Amino acid sequence: MSKNALDVRQEDNFADWYQAAVRGGELAEESGVRGCMIIKPWGFGIWERLKSAMDAEIVAHGVENCYFPLLIPLKHFEQEAQHVEGFAKEMAVVTHHRLSMIDGKLQPDPDAKLEEPLIIRPTSETIIGSAMSRWIRSYRDLPLKLNQWANVMRWEMRPRLFLRTSEFLWQEGHTAHATREEAEAETAAMLAMYKKVVEETLALPVIDGVKPEHERFPGAVDTLSIEAMMRDGKALQAGTSHYLGTNFAKAQNIQFQDSDGEWRYAHTTSWGSSTRLVGALVMTHGDNDGLRLPPRAAPSQIVIIPMLKGGDQDEALLEYCRDLARRLSAGQAFGEPLRVRLDDRPERAQIKRWDWVRKGAPVICEIGARDMEHGAVSFLRRDQLRLDGGKPNVRSEPIDMFADNAGDICENIQQALYDQAETFLRSNIVDDFASLEEVEALFAEDGAKWARIPWARPTGAELDAFVERLKASKLTVRNAPFEQGEVAGKCLVTGREAVENILIARAY
Amino acid sequence: MSKNALDVRQEDNFADWYQAAVRGGELAEESGVRGCMIIKPWGFGIWERLKSAMDAEIVAHGVENCYFPLLIPLKHFEQEAQHVEGFAKEMAVVTHHRLSMIDGKLQPDPDAKLEEPLIIRPTSETIIGSAMSRWIRSYRDLPLKLNQWANVMRWEMRPRLFLRTSEFLWQEGHTAHATREEAEAETAAMLAMYKKVVEETLALPVIDGVKPEHERFPGAVDTLSIEAMMRDGKALQAGTSHYLGTNFAKAQNIQFQDSDGEWRYAHTTSWGSSTRLVGALVMTHGDNDGLRLPPRAAPSQIVIIPMLKGGDQDEALLEYCRDLARRLSAGQAFGEPLRVRLDDRPERAQIKRWDWVRKGAPVICEIGARDMEHGAVSFLRRDQLRLDGGKPNVRSEPIDMFADNAGDICENIQQALYDQAETFLRSNIVDDFASLEEVEALFAEDGAKWARIPWARPTGAELDAFVERLKASKLTVRNAPFEQGEVAGKCLVTGREAVENILIARAY
Repeated sequence: MSKNALDVRQEDNFADWYQAAVRGGELAEESGVRGCMIIKPWGFGIWERLKSAMDAEIVAHGVENCYFPLLIPLKHFEQEAQHVEGFAKEMAVVTHHRLSMIDGKLQPDPDAKLEEPLIIRPTSETIIGSAMSRWIRSYRDLPLKLNQWANVMRWEMRPRLFLRTSEFLWQEGHTAHATREEAEAETAAMLAMYKKVVEETLALPVIDGVKPEHERFPGAVDTLSIEAMMRDGKALQAGTSHYLGTNFAKAQNIQFQDSDGEWRYAHTTSWGSSTRLVGALVMTHGDNDGLRLPPRAAPSQIVIIPMLKGGDQDEALLEYCRDLARRLSAGQAFGEPLRVRLDDRPERAQIKRWDWVRKGAPVICEIGARDMEHGAVSFLRRDQLRLDGGKPNVRSEPIDMFADNAGDICENIQQALYDQAETFLRSNIVDDFASLEEVEALFAEDGAKWARIPWARPTGAELDAFVERLKASKLTVRNAPFEQGEVAGKCLVTGREAVENILIARAY
Repeated sequence: MSKNALDVRQEDNFADWYQAAVRGGELAEESGVRGCMIIKPWGFGIWERLKSAMDAEIVAHGVENCYFPLLIPLKHFEQEAQHVEGFAKEMAVVTHHRLSMIDGKLQPDPDAKLEEPLIIRPTSETIIGSAMSRWIRSYRDLPLKLNQWANVMRWEMRPRLFLRTSEFLWQEGHTAHATREEAEAETAAMLAMYKKVVEETLALPVIDGVKPEHERFPGAVDTLSIEAMMRDGKALQAGTSHYLGTNFAKAQNIQFQDSDGEWRYAHTTSWGSSTRLVGALVMTHGDNDGLRLPPRAAPSQIVIIPMLKGGDQDEALLEYCRDLARRLSAGQAFGEPLRVRLDDRPERAQIKRWDWVRKGAPVICEIGARDMEHGAVSFLRRDQLRLDGGKPNVRSEPIDMFADNAGDICENIQQALYDQAETFLRSNIVDDFASLEEVEALFAEDGAKWARIPWARPTGAELDAFVERLKASKLTVRNAPFEQGEVAGKCLVTGREAVENILIARAY
């Protein structure tokens, strides 16, 4: 077997492999400020593709984008703090508004100390809630559906690129409605939106379902989630949508005068997703040669590498490649123009090939003098990089045929990556357990697995004991899938008649 | 004359009118945190249209988007501080990473004090420079062209919505090149990009030119700007592009090994524009009834208001309006689908009309039972709102004709707003002065004016004295326009032969 393009193998150390894949794929790097990353162009391009696809769905759903301030007054946290014993939150606190050179030392200017410290938003929930309280007066103002794309900050002691960073990019949606039914429908619709975008754009198959009570967002009446399976078998929550009942409206005083003249609290929802999804993409499709990007999410779908020799023929070869780029760019995949990139850096073709392999470009064309002579295109499909012997699987097609087929090839790769991930997900959900011991035994072994078990929705002490027991094996309940299939047998937790299946897994 | 939709008139108090126009148009509001605004959906929609148009140009120019951290270590400012006597900068300083409840009081946790304070980026210049220094090794890595869309923060003591806010949204582009020629060409190309986008999308005519030496960005070899004229005659710098020579590269150690093996400093550029442009849009096109949005920048181009009576006919009327919306949405303006909005809020039609007038929706359709009976559409063009007597200028057209014409009407409004602003700009540039006293006399009068004067590019004490003299009249040199026309007569500052014309104005 040939050497791989990354120097850590997925099966040897998944965490190290992840770091190598992110760095090798030039997605992001540390910035020098703890937990704050620099998202490099290739990584940011993926986020932009995802954002653009998701934003189109959000807007089509009648939600309006807006922008709330970065800094939040301390008092927004006071109510929460009074209810939490030993309240402490890892957040960035702004205490001064001037930096000065004092006694030869650069420092926060004591004369510019803020009367009240300000917090860099860990979420905009409270500040949006307080705006809703001002903006909503009457049933005529409902529904109010707002979304924000923004940076947020939660101080991280053990940061990991994309997965756990102090600063991250996200969207948060907040909606207010006159009735429970409307708010519940909104909650479900936004989860369906996440599932559609994540499956279509990132080719990440997910299981949608309802969080059990103990995994709900604080204050939520219902929390829905989509859960994806990483190559190491861990779950990653890829999006959540909460129905908050009137709890949030009561805390924020979001009231409206209904058409019958009565004042009522609004029913609200909130839903969010973040740059973590880029990490999920890496851990779902990546292999030991680096990233494999689904074409819908790839900043460039087809990369053209001219095999320049430094001689007289180079200009003709470059012109052949430019012509190829023009022809490809006129084609389409997924109803949009193909994104084509000519890599004409004065760099060795072999180096460029492996750069693009690590970056996961879906199709890599390598054009040499022979291709030009024969009017052909040699190319690699990143999802089928290697022949059995580990050698790169380079194919050749006449240029006309390739230009005609390129869109289909991209759509094909998108589907192939989705199918692989879906097969992996489906074949790694295990059920038919006789006891919790059997579940624990499954997770004591190596290898990717989730457990699906029937349960009777225990509460109180029964639930607490179960959660503690799971915790000992680093397990959590992910959700009760919407698609339940058969609920077979007794509840593994209580021995009573089961009411639904739940998924159990380790998680990011 | 009928009452206007705003309660302050432009000609009575421009600053108050501006605030009324921004609030009445529901663009933004104060957040409670000093200088930080909430950008409401209608205001954010304008920014999104502008951003999308500008981003397309930036990307087409081969610049790559990326994302750098919000927080910048103190040490990035040390070099600057050492060169500035009495260094002090209004910036938000983060000193703690935890908020805790201590002795019954919510406060920054003394146990979580940062070893070195962090600054919320006032610009990402230094952090991007330090990344460039790491990423660039060889001439093969050049040009490196990066852009970032982000929030930045500069503490403001006298904030004004959009024009001067502590937090604002902007883009900053930073590029590095192997040669002076290439970097200079980039600087010029990005200014041309600003001019194109601002003129096309916002319908803001601008004068492009070169800043005189004393108005250059610190460290820049050349600063280019586009300058727009507001309705009160003040100038607003709508975009700048800087050629930094090798100064920035030397400060940040951005070196590359050239093809001849020598190590050289890169030639860099930077260029930026911000949410201030939304303020410029208001102050260029707004009138005493509120905003007037150019259709390219309007979140909704055509608003349909059904004149509901609360009776049985309402459903038929709504269906007529929905059909109109569908037909209009199938049409195009500027090569894109028309953005149409049906305002079916249960609110009085008169109230809705004036809401949309204040918000500056380009075309407002008011559909009543009579329109439906006659298969017609009654509509207002916001740019031609009033008849001579001040009465709203409502016209009626058969629905087929209106649906066919709607795209043209939008394109027409875009052009009309541009033409009005351009006429205003051209007719308010005054030249043919015999002395600086005459220039000062011009600005001592009320009314919108810029002065164009010939000068000999004085330096040293001559320049200083001139700048001081301008300052006494609150004037600044805006730029030396690229389009010079005739340079007539002697320099008004020195009496020597003039080499170019410069523009002088009050400015935001």
